[in-house]
Amino acid sequence: MGTDLPFLLAAVSLLSALHMGYLARRVGWSRMAHKVLPPAVTGPPEFERTFRAHQNCVEFYPLFLVIMWTCGLFFSEVTAAAGGLVYMIARQMFVNGYVKATKKRLPGFYLTLAVMFTLSLLGLIGILRGILQKYFHIYL
Amino acid sequence: MGTDLPFLLAAVSLLSALHMGYLARRVGWSRMAHKVLPPAVTGPPEFERTFRAHQNCVEFYPLFLVIMWTCGLFFSEVTAAAGGLVYMIARQMFVNGYVKATKKRLPGFYLTLAVMFTLSLLGLIGILRGILQKYFHIYL
Amino acid sequence: MGTDLPFLLAAVSLLSALHMGYLARRVGWSRMAHKVLPPAVTGPPEFERTFRAHQNCVEFYPLFLVIMWTCGLFFSEVTAAAGGLVYMIARQMFVNGYVKATKKRLPGFYLTLAVMFTLSLLGLIGILRGILQKYFHIYL
Repeated sequence: MGTDLPFLLAAVSLLSALHMGYLARRVGWSRMAHKVLPPAVTGPPEFERTFRAHQNCVEFYPLFLVIMWTCGLFFSEVTAAAGGLVYMIARQMFVNGYVKATKKRLPGFYLTLAVMFTLSLLGLIGILRGILQKYFHIYL
Repeated sequence: MGTDLPFLLAAVSLLSALHMGYLARRVGWSRMAHKVLPPAVTGPPEFERTFRAHQNCVEFYPLFLVIMWTCGLFFSEVTAAAGGLVYMIARQMFVNGYVKATKKRLPGFYLTLAVMFTLSLLGLIGILRGILQKYFHIYL
Repeated sequence: MGTDLPFLLAAVSLLSALHMGYLARRVGWSRMAHKVLPPAVTGPPEFERTFRAHQNCVEFYPLFLVIMWTCGLFFSEVTAAAGGLVYMIARQMFVNGYVKATKKRLPGFYLTLAVMFTLSLLGLIGILRGILQKYFHIYL
């Protein structure tokens, strides 16, 4: 196996996938606690908040992967992997807060957006620099 | 940084992730306009159409990424990246139409399917050619 | 085109994307059979089970991709691709069962989890070995 593979990005991706699995599991636990049998997705407010919190994570997850890998391959692997860990913390804060009260989802949500915008910007810089080099032979 | 990296696929992927973020934001705007507070996902018909339009994009997005990258790495990067841009336009048409009326989602939906089937077919050709070369030493 | 590309992972990924497209189509057919017009997502129990079965696949799909590719790139491509095929069978069993009755989703669900845990574990082993080599010069 080559030692030039992006091990850190892969490690954070795998951790984030397991984290997503854990967040899905929490919906299952909430179903049991509130006796909401599948396929129902409505029930007591706490269950509905838990369900929506997870759905929001589902909506964001592919975007996160694209953004982290773009930043990691085209800007800096260590920065992207560190950002990925912060993203996981942000999502955990978001879900923990949302389960308690709808308004308490916001700090984790804003941290999520901050990480995603930062990594997107860095990735964009890296890609533009690469395109200038490859297609226009301009080296910045 | 190597100049042989798939910059175009990465650029379109990053753009498409930001586009998905924008489509998610539109659901938030629709929540405000129609006073539908989270975690509720039901409300006036226009809100429900906006919500479903975004959910449909969420369902398609990982499939799109797999198909575009497969086509880009195994058939042609430029074709796949161009297809990715058409996909983004198709999804924008789909959401804009769906928000107005359920039937108006169809042109954008059919364009989405057309792009995905085209890129899938090209990617499949590229992969089969690669498998024939690598495992059967047959060069077409 | 290089012959060292992960053709098998790409082939299984593309097949799994088309399979996901087919599962989405089944929700459309169920809409027609039960006269549930978009954007509605509630209706007769069989429609709701079909809808939730597909949503569950949507939730799992990005996790599956991360796990299969991690296992394939850092442990063994053939093992990961074979696991990917089993995953597709497991999801098919899950959806077929869920459409019939909520309890009948379980065998396919457990098989899904078994594949994902196995590939995760193998991928984790591969990544840790890679990190030990690259950053600590420890060869196991």
